[in-house]
Amino acid sequence: MSREIPYKIYLEEHEMPKQWYNVRADMKNKPAPLLNPATFQPMGYEDLRPVFCDELIRQELDDTTPYIDIPQEILDFYKMYRPSPLVRAYCLEKKLGTPAKIYYKFEGNNTSGSHKLNSAIAQAYYAKKQGLKGVTTETGAGQWGTALSMACAYLELDCQVYMVKCSYEQKPFRREVMRTYGAKVTPSPSETTEVGRKILAEHPGTSGSLGCAISEAVEAATHQEGYRYVLGSVLNQVLLHQTVIGLETKAALDKYGIVPDMIIGCAGGGSNLGGLISPFMGEKLRGEKDYRFIAVEPASCPSFTRGRFAYDYCDTGMVCPLAKMYTLGSGFIPSANHAGGLRYHGMSTILSQLYHDGLMEAVSVEQTSVFEAAEQFARVEGILPAPESSHAIKVAIDEALKCKETGEAKTIVFGLTGTGYFDMYAYEKFNNGVMTDSVPTDEELEKGFAGLPKVPGQ
Amino acid sequence: MSREIPYKIYLEEHEMPKQWYNVRADMKNKPAPLLNPATFQPMGYEDLRPVFCDELIRQELDDTTPYIDIPQEILDFYKMYRPSPLVRAYCLEKKLGTPAKIYYKFEGNNTSGSHKLNSAIAQAYYAKKQGLKGVTTETGAGQWGTALSMACAYLELDCQVYMVKCSYEQKPFRREVMRTYGAKVTPSPSETTEVGRKILAEHPGTSGSLGCAISEAVEAATHQEGYRYVLGSVLNQVLLHQTVIGLETKAALDKYGIVPDMIIGCAGGGSNLGGLISPFMGEKLRGEKDYRFIAVEPASCPSFTRGRFAYDYCDTGMVCPLAKMYTLGSGFIPSANHAGGLRYHGMSTILSQLYHDGLMEAVSVEQTSVFEAAEQFARVEGILPAPESSHAIKVAIDEALKCKETGEAKTIVFGLTGTGYFDMYAYEKFNNGVMTDSVPTDEELEKGFAGLPKVPGQ
Repeated sequence: MSREIPYKIYLEEHEMPKQWYNVRADMKNKPAPLLNPATFQPMGYEDLRPVFCDELIRQELDDTTPYIDIPQEILDFYKMYRPSPLVRAYCLEKKLGTPAKIYYKFEGNNTSGSHKLNSAIAQAYYAKKQGLKGVTTETGAGQWGTALSMACAYLELDCQVYMVKCSYEQKPFRREVMRTYGAKVTPSPSETTEVGRKILAEHPGTSGSLGCAISEAVEAATHQEGYRYVLGSVLNQVLLHQTVIGLETKAALDKYGIVPDMIIGCAGGGSNLGGLISPFMGEKLRGEKDYRFIAVEPASCPSFTRGRFAYDYCDTGMVCPLAKMYTLGSGFIPSANHAGGLRYHGMSTILSQLYHDGLMEAVSVEQTSVFEAAEQFARVEGILPAPESSHAIKVAIDEALKCKETGEAKTIVFGLTGTGYFDMYAYEKFNNGVMTDSVPTDEELEKGFAGLPKVPGQ
Repeated sequence: MSREIPYKIYLEEHEMPKQWYNVRADMKNKPAPLLNPATFQPMGYEDLRPVFCDELIRQELDDTTPYIDIPQEILDFYKMYRPSPLVRAYCLEKKLGTPAKIYYKFEGNNTSGSHKLNSAIAQAYYAKKQGLKGVTTETGAGQWGTALSMACAYLELDCQVYMVKCSYEQKPFRREVMRTYGAKVTPSPSETTEVGRKILAEHPGTSGSLGCAISEAVEAATHQEGYRYVLGSVLNQVLLHQTVIGLETKAALDKYGIVPDMIIGCAGGGSNLGGLISPFMGEKLRGEKDYRFIAVEPASCPSFTRGRFAYDYCDTGMVCPLAKMYTLGSGFIPSANHAGGLRYHGMSTILSQLYHDGLMEAVSVEQTSVFEAAEQFARVEGILPAPESSHAIKVAIDEALKCKETGEAKTIVFGLTGTGYFDMYAYEKFNNGVMTDSVPTDEELEKGFAGLPKVPGQ
């Protein structure tokens, strides 16, 4: 087999991006501002300072600067695990018998096991630079908590992680990775915060949720001198940092003159997908090129495909700012049988606006079909994918099979966000044939929507 | 910080090795031949055919051909996860404050989590080419079983793994990875083989050993039509395949004109260390260059540093050929509190001969110091290392600290064979401060030596 395009396209150090790309600068309809949950007024820099790091607030609010320099210290850290490879899925193509050309950008080759490290190091860096002692955060599946622990260990910053209780108990090994990196990990809800005690009193024996862990982490940050809260997805700043994925992907494709027809990614809070598509979306927004963008979400947590585009609470305790986004309501909790991440009730405001404006598509898929795709991918491409990432694999395979029917040799790029090494409990269920699907009923969704805040004019 | 040498040196596809290097061709004192355990006569090609694949036997016995072509199909598979990076440990150097320059060859960026895949794909390929239905093997810590499962899934070959029972129970996730790749995993000792039933009758409730699992896998191979047995370390053929590590390392160093002073690797059965050092050892054997080679083994299983250089059984059931090697006796079982791999009682015959001839050194280290090194490494270099690999880290750090004392800017290369994602049980013990060390007494070793076979002239 002769191949002009290598299996894996690696950029050289000097080809790596030196700036993040801020897609908001090219959006005509800007994402709606964050609102104060009490007054419904837009929140500015000073309003956000008790919770977030100063420089990160600037990035959060900046919707006009197209390129933002990546500080040298972050570039140095990126060099430890980046560039990530853009892989041509020759073996998958052969197995499917498709004329489509499939590429995936693989972000799993670092100890956090995912793309989360791209923003974790940036957020930890700005916290350190501000002279803070530490940061607090929440983690669900555990990838974000691991990434932040790694970044904080590197910068010698204290790291406090509120881990959703059911994950804390089901994923002891994720917890131990964080502890190995020196993080303090607390199962949420906990007795260590007021909001945690309140939730425990109201729901004794609850196994927690992401929204609840966020509330605890925010409280912990604001009640300790020298601490701020950081978040692994949803926020504009996180999506900004994740554009390193898309910029590298674009540079690698450009290097070989490859133009993708469609770009596919899984979407939980939206940061990996947003990071991957941003530079391509920029071209589309500026009218230079056209691409299809497909967000893939679990049928059990279908924010895009069945949610409302509305202002909503970002957390269960309703202490965070309101964000305008596709949401299932902050009270929505996906079925317990749903494996892995992508459990967040809302979605990045940037992606929500782009989706609302018809600039991207979304599909939802059921988890047994996702694990079938994961197994098929693992056996031919070698990599054992995270359940989250496998949502993108599933739709990439579907699209490649459509090409097989039509005979079109389309170029498909998808984001392979991470590895499934800490998700073997879910794989075990799949291997034993006891994994099931679960889709919320319209009634269940209505209950979630009923909890949306009554923002004037919405 | 400007850096002439990048963080990670990646070879391009065209720079990757096309041949394995057979160090035996340059050895004056060849490794001793395998002996028939019944007759003590050297075993030839025909004697080994019932157990091993034909082409692999040729490789096993060939001690004169210096370079052996890597088949194109194996090169294609290698491209899926190779070249592995040679990383400059800038952050570790800075943390230690050493003038030493530290590099590590990182083999953990594939789903098996280790270098084992390099030989697994080769062995599976030759089995497939011979028209076999499947292969059998044993696995202890699980890396080899995972690697073989991946290779067999790729080639659509049946894969039967006998997994040491205590690992099978303590590492359910390793087991599930293998199952995801379609392997049949049986806890050993089992009722499925005669030798398994015999061991169970003699030692009811035993949690198994590697030597016992080997006996079962060999029996399973020889009792099924179209099956052969494959092994993940110790054998000459395995070390041969692993030279892809050393050849890539050498090419990467040569590319930047770097000459190492010492090369360090952990040693269980010896295949990763042998593979890493082979091309450099070749230069030393041919009198072209000199290097220090350091094998690092656990103090709880000290084959080199406290073992005997003698013919011994390779397995508990005594069905395998005898090999002349540094050994603790086939009845030796390391303390139960020893974490991770490197538990095999013997050592590669090639490395044993080289060590016996004074061409390499060996040191043993205790496991709490190994985990301290692992934690330090993880925090600054990001990668969470396997306990096995961390033996090499420990000694690399020791050597770098000696350089700090003397002011010498030596160049240290070590093999980072894999990641510790499936070893968090051991890390948890370390994090909780309940990990202990264990060193066998002289009396315990004597018991192992008493079981050595009485080979005439030994």
